[in-house]
Amino acid sequence: MPEADYAVLTEQSLARYIAQRPALSARLGLASDLEITEVGDGNLNLVFIVRSASQPERAAVVKQALPYLRVAGESWPLTRDRVRFEAQSLREYNRLVPGLAPEVYDFDPAQSVLAMEYLGRHVILRRPLAARTPLPSFADHISTFLARTLFYTSDLYLTGPEKNALQARFINAELCQLQEAFVYSHPFEAAPENRWNPLLAAEVEMVRRDAQLKREVAELKAGYLTHAQALLHGDLHTGSVMVTADETRVIDSEFAFYGPMGYDVGNVLAHLVLNCLAHQVHTPEAAERRTYQCYLLDVVREVWIGFAGKFEALWATNRCGSLGGASYFDFLGGEAAFAQFQADYLRAVMRDTIGHAGCEILRRLMGIVSVWELTSITDDALRATAERLALEVGRQWILQRGQFARIEDALAVVHSCLDDNL
Amino acid sequence: MPEADYAVLTEQSLARYIAQRPALSARLGLASDLEITEVGDGNLNLVFIVRSASQPERAAVVKQALPYLRVAGESWPLTRDRVRFEAQSLREYNRLVPGLAPEVYDFDPAQSVLAMEYLGRHVILRRPLAARTPLPSFADHISTFLARTLFYTSDLYLTGPEKNALQARFINAELCQLQEAFVYSHPFEAAPENRWNPLLAAEVEMVRRDAQLKREVAELKAGYLTHAQALLHGDLHTGSVMVTADETRVIDSEFAFYGPMGYDVGNVLAHLVLNCLAHQVHTPEAAERRTYQCYLLDVVREVWIGFAGKFEALWATNRCGSLGGASYFDFLGGEAAFAQFQADYLRAVMRDTIGHAGCEILRRLMGIVSVWELTSITDDALRATAERLALEVGRQWILQRGQFARIEDALAVVHSCLDDNL
Repeated sequence: MPEADYAVLTEQSLARYIAQRPALSARLGLASDLEITEVGDGNLNLVFIVRSASQPERAAVVKQALPYLRVAGESWPLTRDRVRFEAQSLREYNRLVPGLAPEVYDFDPAQSVLAMEYLGRHVILRRPLAARTPLPSFADHISTFLARTLFYTSDLYLTGPEKNALQARFINAELCQLQEAFVYSHPFEAAPENRWNPLLAAEVEMVRRDAQLKREVAELKAGYLTHAQALLHGDLHTGSVMVTADETRVIDSEFAFYGPMGYDVGNVLAHLVLNCLAHQVHTPEAAERRTYQCYLLDVVREVWIGFAGKFEALWATNRCGSLGGASYFDFLGGEAAFAQFQADYLRAVMRDTIGHAGCEILRRLMGIVSVWELTSITDDALRATAERLALEVGRQWILQRGQFARIEDALAVVHSCLDDNL
Repeated sequence: MPEADYAVLTEQSLARYIAQRPALSARLGLASDLEITEVGDGNLNLVFIVRSASQPERAAVVKQALPYLRVAGESWPLTRDRVRFEAQSLREYNRLVPGLAPEVYDFDPAQSVLAMEYLGRHVILRRPLAARTPLPSFADHISTFLARTLFYTSDLYLTGPEKNALQARFINAELCQLQEAFVYSHPFEAAPENRWNPLLAAEVEMVRRDAQLKREVAELKAGYLTHAQALLHGDLHTGSVMVTADETRVIDSEFAFYGPMGYDVGNVLAHLVLNCLAHQVHTPEAAERRTYQCYLLDVVREVWIGFAGKFEALWATNRCGSLGGASYFDFLGGEAAFAQFQADYLRAVMRDTIGHAGCEILRRLMGIVSVWELTSITDDALRATAERLALEVGRQWILQRGQFARIEDALAVVHSCLDDNL
């Protein structure tokens, strides 16, 4: 990635660039026939939509990484190498879960350019959720995504050298450092960039001084830093998923690294819960609100149950990795021991999932980055009604994560917070 | 490491080789003045001792990796790259624990040659232990080695990017695969290379069919595979340590990788216990035996207590890593929370230590590699008396590792096995 050759693309220069890349010109046709529009917010990456004017089915999204991250008004140097992690992980997804991530057309490390499938019909998951749209296939799709990407990159499927080879390509130091600081540390201490609702000042302060909670968050952070269990997406919130009524695509995987499975699963759950609780304000009509909130919590249940079931099934039929293999459990009573080992393994993933989800919920209330569901509520008092519930769920999920035997037990915490708030 | 250039060294060619390496010729003097002797067993590496004839204080050990491992009579291709891991880790030790590992003089990746300090006065730790020699500084030295190498390479001291940079240099796929197979899997299943005392057939079979034990060993294996907590030596048995009455040097670190701290600490403890139990046969006189066995178990205690105390002290005065930092615990009651977090952290390391030690003890009884302390007892019946005790200690340590509050509780298991055998 020689800096000297790197040039920021424009709508004009992109046509010439495409003409020089065989993979792209073959797919998109003549450069002179292309319509190119820059659509990104320019905070982190340039994002262009490219279409053939004469054949609109020929299209692509072209993403170029900029050498900095603009956050809270400041510019923060950030390796362009992050687009390599996105390209590599999307290619793994194309192989492991075809149809659940955009197809990769081309990757150019020198220019930090990644070209992929244009998702013209898809919308960011957060939008239909805010509009109380039912998503009948989402839980099935995302649980398949989670089960397959996590299982097939773990020691349950791979041999040691296979896993090590993959892991070596995903040492994602800079982006992991952002995440570990902005999820597990800064929101919980006096960091200047933190933002929170002034009406929640007392509750936020209480979290920051809660000795037991802080120890638990530190333990979860240790897991993020050291538990190289599977190849994670690393930022799997409702803004990283695009959907139609019957399709799901996971995008923006530049945070990909080897970490604890519960981090990815927990992110999905946390953002469904945040959306659910934001309806406390977004949907004023009580019956309508309650129906959709229960629907979303049922989606959470289906995501976990679907993930755990599919993961277990993959493991039962693919016992070829370095952990939990068939020959190791080949003794009288071995099948029962294996079943118990599987159950313990998934129980530990659930414990992690609930814990990381709790951290994710809290950090969106008291750290530098919130979520649109909350920030779109401009009235502090109204927003506080949703945020108080979220804070309570986050707190309880972290503290009680070891005590939940089933996902329903964790959801009972959310239901109970909603009931108290009727 | 181009294969074409690689040439196996001989006593003759080594003199010419040294003359071409400035770091070596500067240290050793004229090639014509050198006395060179091959001293290795040629199973894995060539090892030469090189000395100046006219100035015997000018000396070095030169180690060249062969492209295979000879084990159980078979030749097994094995990357010569392992000598890179040894050179890299020894250089870390030279920095972190100067005087506790041989000084590195030169490393040549093309020829897989590592030149280091010649330890002419030192003997392999196993020898004085077998001769019932007291080693007054060993526990202090090895606990310093463990505390410093593990603390300074962990998230407690390093930032994320610092740790990731180090970790990327220690993805040691081939050697880790040997270890995970030969420590945690093969000894516990029907693998053709396993060897065990026929008089212990029933006990060995019981271990291989013990459902709970097998699940616990699988959990420990998961830790070996996924818990990237610190840079480990990776093979820290009594054959990897050289001593004099007042000096200690750790050698042979080619298995170095990022793994759970308890693996290294546990290996030290396991081999002291194996040596202790082998005295059951090696030292027939009861009082003399009992005295040295108690001495060795006291060394085990001192190693753990020394390690934990030094580790805690380093952490208290170096809170600059990504985990457990000072600002995170800067709140009313934060110091108590930090102390509790430290205590929980070390308790988890102790639990891991005892568990990995238990696996190491068992695999030396029922896997492909035993230890000299046991194999030197040629009479099956006599050897079985020591091995039965070891099997019982290994089993109990694995199963009860979560219940020991202090190291003395784990040692009580060994004392109790010895008492039963009086």
